[in-house]
Amino acid sequence: MAHGSIVLGANQYGKAEVRLVKVTRDTARHEIEDLSITSQLRGDFEAAHVEGDNAHVIATDTQKNTAFAFARDGVGAPEDLLLRLARHFVDDFEWVTGGRWAAEKYSWAHIDMGNEDGESTHDHAFVRGGTEIRTATVTIDGGGAPTVIAGLKDLSVLKSTGSQFTGFPRDVYTTLQDATDRILATSVTARWRYNTAGLDYDAVYADVRRVLLRAFADKHSHALQQTLFQMGKAVLEAHPEIDEIKFSMPNRHHYLVDLSPFDLDNPGEVFFAADRPYGLIEAVVQRDDATDAAAAWEGMAGFC
Amino acid sequence: MAHGSIVLGANQYGKAEVRLVKVTRDTARHEIEDLSITSQLRGDFEAAHVEGDNAHVIATDTQKNTAFAFARDGVGAPEDLLLRLARHFVDDFEWVTGGRWAAEKYSWAHIDMGNEDGESTHDHAFVRGGTEIRTATVTIDGGGAPTVIAGLKDLSVLKSTGSQFTGFPRDVYTTLQDATDRILATSVTARWRYNTAGLDYDAVYADVRRVLLRAFADKHSHALQQTLFQMGKAVLEAHPEIDEIKFSMPNRHHYLVDLSPFDLDNPGEVFFAADRPYGLIEAVVQRDDATDAAAAWEGMAGFC
Amino acid sequence: MAHGSIVLGANQYGKAEVRLVKVTRDTARHEIEDLSITSQLRGDFEAAHVEGDNAHVIATDTQKNTAFAFARDGVGAPEDLLLRLARHFVDDFEWVTGGRWAAEKYSWAHIDMGNEDGESTHDHAFVRGGTEIRTATVTIDGGGAPTVIAGLKDLSVLKSTGSQFTGFPRDVYTTLQDATDRILATSVTARWRYNTAGLDYDAVYADVRRVLLRAFADKHSHALQQTLFQMGKAVLEAHPEIDEIKFSMPNRHHYLVDLSPFDLDNPGEVFFAADRPYGLIEAVVQRDDATDAAAAWEGMAGFC
Amino acid sequence: MAHGSIVLGANQYGKAEVRLVKVTRDTARHEIEDLSITSQLRGDFEAAHVEGDNAHVIATDTQKNTAFAFARDGVGAPEDLLLRLARHFVDDFEWVTGGRWAAEKYSWAHIDMGNEDGESTHDHAFVRGGTEIRTATVTIDGGGAPTVIAGLKDLSVLKSTGSQFTGFPRDVYTTLQDATDRILATSVTARWRYNTAGLDYDAVYADVRRVLLRAFADKHSHALQQTLFQMGKAVLEAHPEIDEIKFSMPNRHHYLVDLSPFDLDNPGEVFFAADRPYGLIEAVVQRDDATDAAAAWEGMAGFC
Repeated sequence: MAHGSIVLGANQYGKAEVRLVKVTRDTARHEIEDLSITSQLRGDFEAAHVEGDNAHVIATDTQKNTAFAFARDGVGAPEDLLLRLARHFVDDFEWVTGGRWAAEKYSWAHIDMGNEDGESTHDHAFVRGGTEIRTATVTIDGGGAPTVIAGLKDLSVLKSTGSQFTGFPRDVYTTLQDATDRILATSVTARWRYNTAGLDYDAVYADVRRVLLRAFADKHSHALQQTLFQMGKAVLEAHPEIDEIKFSMPNRHHYLVDLSPFDLDNPGEVFFAADRPYGLIEAVVQRDDATDAAAAWEGMAGFC
Repeated sequence: MAHGSIVLGANQYGKAEVRLVKVTRDTARHEIEDLSITSQLRGDFEAAHVEGDNAHVIATDTQKNTAFAFARDGVGAPEDLLLRLARHFVDDFEWVTGGRWAAEKYSWAHIDMGNEDGESTHDHAFVRGGTEIRTATVTIDGGGAPTVIAGLKDLSVLKSTGSQFTGFPRDVYTTLQDATDRILATSVTARWRYNTAGLDYDAVYADVRRVLLRAFADKHSHALQQTLFQMGKAVLEAHPEIDEIKFSMPNRHHYLVDLSPFDLDNPGEVFFAADRPYGLIEAVVQRDDATDAAAAWEGMAGFC
Repeated sequence: MAHGSIVLGANQYGKAEVRLVKVTRDTARHEIEDLSITSQLRGDFEAAHVEGDNAHVIATDTQKNTAFAFARDGVGAPEDLLLRLARHFVDDFEWVTGGRWAAEKYSWAHIDMGNEDGESTHDHAFVRGGTEIRTATVTIDGGGAPTVIAGLKDLSVLKSTGSQFTGFPRDVYTTLQDATDRILATSVTARWRYNTAGLDYDAVYADVRRVLLRAFADKHSHALQQTLFQMGKAVLEAHPEIDEIKFSMPNRHHYLVDLSPFDLDNPGEVFFAADRPYGLIEAVVQRDDATDAAAAWEGMAGFC
Repeated sequence: MAHGSIVLGANQYGKAEVRLVKVTRDTARHEIEDLSITSQLRGDFEAAHVEGDNAHVIATDTQKNTAFAFARDGVGAPEDLLLRLARHFVDDFEWVTGGRWAAEKYSWAHIDMGNEDGESTHDHAFVRGGTEIRTATVTIDGGGAPTVIAGLKDLSVLKSTGSQFTGFPRDVYTTLQDATDRILATSVTARWRYNTAGLDYDAVYADVRRVLLRAFADKHSHALQQTLFQMGKAVLEAHPEIDEIKFSMPNRHHYLVDLSPFDLDNPGEVFFAADRPYGLIEAVVQRDDATDAAAAWEGMAGFC
């Protein structure tokens, strides 16, 4: 039983979920960027915790103000805005040795006016895009170089065939039957870590999303684990600037409804989509010579 | 002070949120329909409430089974499936004189494989579409004809200019300043009532959605009230088969951030998107000779 | 097919979910009131909708300010604060003929310090109470007297026995078996309408909550419909100042798990708590000579 | 830029959020345990991911069945049920070397019947308790001994005075003023790691909760960081069987409303409770000779 003296361990603090919308209006055709930004600082904050001395506590309100002020110069890729914030806090405050800066970005599209000619979308009216959310995280630990992790969440996908689950072990608690043709549905949360600085983060993001969807669709699935690995492998093969990709993917079960009591067959047509419980498949796909970056992953919700 | 005897008033019961997914797989190219269905019956259920006699209580489990069984023949427009369910319960059980059948439908698109040729989407892999949800309701009251109400919710739209709010009255509690150029953002919930049976509900839905977006985008806004009315008017003008349309639209405030403490201007560029409180604008736009259909609207969440 | 001219129908607008916390600190022992307030006005707002003329549009920001200013004098029962707001808007603005004012109230308790002596709770530190939320609504329509509706939501209750469901009709779609001893679980949403002004709303609320819980617990249940009616009847019997009470109660199914594949019995011990679908039981219990008050119920979420 | 071959990294899989309700009914006075259980396995699952060979994939459905079957013998403290599940999977399957088993437990109380005598609560009718949720996690890594982490989340607390925030540094982006008397409100998420096996987990949990509430209430706060540290220190002082405790605590801002435009003062009485952004304070309080247990914390949502 431990009896050591009681001390402060790892810590970080800041402002979470700053909802920032930037309008770019240099021309008649506007663009909008819709973000939720979180800024958290790490460093020498022991006096604040132990003695109630706030001399080092850069107010979370100040962190929020800084995000808004920096956006005045333009946002660009969320990763770039986070990197600017990270450098500012680490460079300007000697007791700040690192932190975690995160963003969610929500997609909007110019409204389609249904006109006949080529330019048929509205200049300054927008409609929310798909349900998925782009994520970005920049971490600095102990004054080192920043680690940039991009990602997405809530990307819901479904295959109506091309999926099976057979050959699993059976014990006394096993009642599940082999499924040779089933619905496979999941909501992809993925995060990938870059090994290179100065990327065109918007372009890489768009392509990773494309590769993920294509790999999910294309490959026959023996289990969600296999599909996950194939999705990760496809991303790493296409993007040498990525060292590892982590997935957290629920298996959203779709149960074939037994219609036989009503004298009906059901050859893979009518399903009940269950909420809970659900399978939960989590794994990292990585290069075998990838650098260790455990610190950058700390504090992620769930497995990634 | 009332002293009358205590009686059962209006009532309805059933099964809510049956999550039904139908795969149409007659050819290699599959289609999916993803629905949440609610079935509630009205009629003579007094003995169940007052005496605990369940002889009239068609089990909510039976209502669920019926929805799954009916889907075996195909779903089609959600309104058509609800009408089939409604007729079944009212026709087959003499003590059932009406009810309320509702559906939500979630959109999915075939995954874009990014191929060069024309047919570039996958045959049986899908990705969730936009954040908005299609709704449908069929109501029968007192054995009469069904009322069909279609709708959508969570259709998030935003204008980065073309919106103002001025000329409002000022009293002792007024601190708001005139806004001559502001962001206008809302999440549209709308429901519209058909005056005609046997419509192509999918086609009308798609066009109403298009008209709503176009009207939101096109018109300069003096207030969200005016925008709401213009959206409703555009729908009724384009669709004589609709008698009334109801809206519940939050005014999702985007506050221009004061950057002057940091020696920065902010000419409509950097905004804080607030959660609560929010404006809430609700109204009906209708034909002046529309029939009364109050019963069909009872039990709607919020104003519509 | 209707072809009438297009007009504005029923409408209301205002500010929703104003999160107001009031501290009463006249003595060392503080009290807090934690509310979410919504104010919506009805009256002559046609010019705003049809012509974009805001001369009548009391800003939703002004409605918010008014709520905060009125709270400076003390909140009291939520119904009383809503009545003050209602009278202010109807009396001070001639074109305002009514509206809907609603509140949710969240419960907090002084933290129990676990001291030995009598006064063992802390003077100014609080912990959130149960999951249920108190609700209140005041409606004025057409300049008449206000209607006061009190209520609660998310009051989760469960009986581990004393509940059955048998004797229901069987058709071709019925597979459910009789249940002679089952778990009955629901989350009560109830709203009740007062027929008398000037009540001690806090005291009545506390007693209605007590009567609801006691009736749920005490009576053997043949169906959730019967339990609902008994709960409503008990409230009306105990409170002559209430004319009607409406319920919306999900039947949160708890399915007995079949453990026989594992050579285990399961005599009502191990259950799976399902999310969806769920039964949904909705009804009004009322006095047979109650006045009609349909207008006051419009716009309630769900059945009540 | 890395060019290593692509391999599977860390991984775990299982069934999440199994909603299990256990009724203990040996006597007329029933007890209920209401849990959400997640079971995830770690070990040699490479063939499933890389080759689609499921010979090692104990179905997530089997993991669910096992949880229900084990509950037949009684649940007890959630930690004890998780330990039984953990040992079963690691002992009975040679390729399973570890895993993560987690539970949430929801509190229910016997309904108070308001009777005069001593035993005034109902034997088998229950009402949900407070909003907070008890959590428990058991982790086994690489076949070692299990690590047991207990916790709670959503424990909302508020102080109406006894809190200040002053003495923080000011830079060009600082606009916040000193607060010498403010509301301090948070929703505590905490997890603590035991250094001793075979504890009475229910008793320790109840006492840690008591100590947390008391420390929050008792101490004057110079910042939420200080309050967090004091809460953690109090727990470690009272419980030598705990080596470390991690907190994630939002600072739920309550802004004093400026009533001066309405000629009203506001001496700490009327507040606006904001949703977002919020402060976010996260830290570990630990013994300086605590063993390292990083692996047991991986995959926790947020900082803890």
